[in-house]
Amino acid sequence: MSTFTLVIGNKNYSSWSLRPWLVLKQIGINFSEIRIPLYTATARQELLRHSPAGKVPILHHGDITVWESLAICEYVAEYFPDAYLLPQEPSARALAHSISAEMHASFYKLRYSMPMNCRARLPGLGMQPGVQEDIDRILDIWNNCRNNFGSSGDMLFGNFTIPDAMFAPVVLRFMTYGVKLDSTSQAYAEAILALPAIQEWIAAAQDESETIPEFELSSKYSLTQSD
Amino acid sequence: MSTFTLVIGNKNYSSWSLRPWLVLKQIGINFSEIRIPLYTATARQELLRHSPAGKVPILHHGDITVWESLAICEYVAEYFPDAYLLPQEPSARALAHSISAEMHASFYKLRYSMPMNCRARLPGLGMQPGVQEDIDRILDIWNNCRNNFGSSGDMLFGNFTIPDAMFAPVVLRFMTYGVKLDSTSQAYAEAILALPAIQEWIAAAQDESETIPEFELSSKYSLTQSD
Ligand SMILES: N[C@@H](CCC(=O)N[C@@H](CS)C(=O)NCC(=O)O)C(=O)O
Ligand SMILES: N[C@@H](CCC(=O)N[C@@H](CS)C(=O)NCC(=O)O)C(=O)O
Repeated sequence: MSTFTLVIGNKNYSSWSLRPWLVLKQIGINFSEIRIPLYTATARQELLRHSPAGKVPILHHGDITVWESLAICEYVAEYFPDAYLLPQEPSARALAHSISAEMHASFYKLRYSMPMNCRARLPGLGMQPGVQEDIDRILDIWNNCRNNFGSSGDMLFGNFTIPDAMFAPVVLRFMTYGVKLDSTSQAYAEAILALPAIQEWIAAAQDESETIPEFELSSKYSLTQSD
Repeated sequence: MSTFTLVIGNKNYSSWSLRPWLVLKQIGINFSEIRIPLYTATARQELLRHSPAGKVPILHHGDITVWESLAICEYVAEYFPDAYLLPQEPSARALAHSISAEMHASFYKLRYSMPMNCRARLPGLGMQPGVQEDIDRILDIWNNCRNNFGSSGDMLFGNFTIPDAMFAPVVLRFMTYGVKLDSTSQAYAEAILALPAIQEWIAAAQDESETIPEFELSSKYSLTQSD
């Protein structure tokens, strides 16, 4: 089997990087990591050496290069069909495809206003106009999955699947900004946070030395906060 | 076989709707259409009757509902494996996944500044800051696919596949705003425009009576244009 190498950004901040990383960890395959700290003078140039789109995450598998978090997750799911990274039952599978693509393209206000920042605790910050609507839609999705398809485990579709990877960064945002969750969503978020791979990612984020001011809400909103 | 029903927006404007519509047409299956004109007083409420995400396109297939253009395309590809809606060769397939996901999540400046508007011809409009970078990246993608994987036909990967559906709305934008293309991209764009299904979509857009001012550049930029 050819080697897998995942190119990622800073673990503290790069929400897209976490998704395929978590998928690879969850299925227990060996892979190497190349970490490129973002927003540095050389980052863009380094990223373009790995993929024409110039963004993390990027997966190298032998001669093959895949980019875009969702595409990497799908590539891995197709390569390891026995890992069942998508539900098999047609209506669950259709929902898994829909919500993964929805997460991939939407929730811009939440993503912009509550940047992923694993090691920070900033409860109450980031609740800009429109963010609560994004949160409500996400909690709706989680409740729908957990209540209708989740009975065989504590992930969205019971066992771990791609949608859990797609939403894992949101769980970390909710933790950082102290977002209030209904009980079903709270239990789901706790199950994600309890995954050893997530614990490992957070610990690594805590060990990182870089700070990216664009993603630090306390500085970003310092003027309005200190008013 | 259960019935397929595709819920779409205005053909003139709804770029996301075109994608799965084109896929369904290209593989020649029967499906019914529900067209919901967007930006009306009742649109949101009607959309929410069809899907919890409240956006077109939405596919109903028997009891199953799928939303998000990319997820619908994938659903159809999985349901009709013999239609070969994704390339089979691993490196072509990886590229197809990557660029489809990239189109799904990116090119915001192009999409915002050059809204799809099939029946309009507004050459030179829409070239806001950052748009040329998006265009360049797209032409890069098209050249890469056509030169390395396109020899068996005139689509990105030879025969029609999901990436062609994902990029078809961009072809229509380039036509509307008169974007200059290199010769490989020009030939590809012409091949897309020559598809009978695309001709049918454009003809239907011309027959639509609604005008959505938000997507009409002449009015949107009328102040700067008349300066
Ligand atoms: N839709 C892409 C988004 C990737 C993305 O935006 N990555 C950011 C970091 S989280 C990046 O690489 N930024 C560096 C740059 O744009 O130069 C995906 O899902 O992979
Ligand atoms: N990422 C979605 C985008 C869908 C989307 O934004 N649809 C627009 C029209 S093109 C819509 O339904 N807007 C109506 C609304 O937001 O109320 C997809 O690929 O399907």
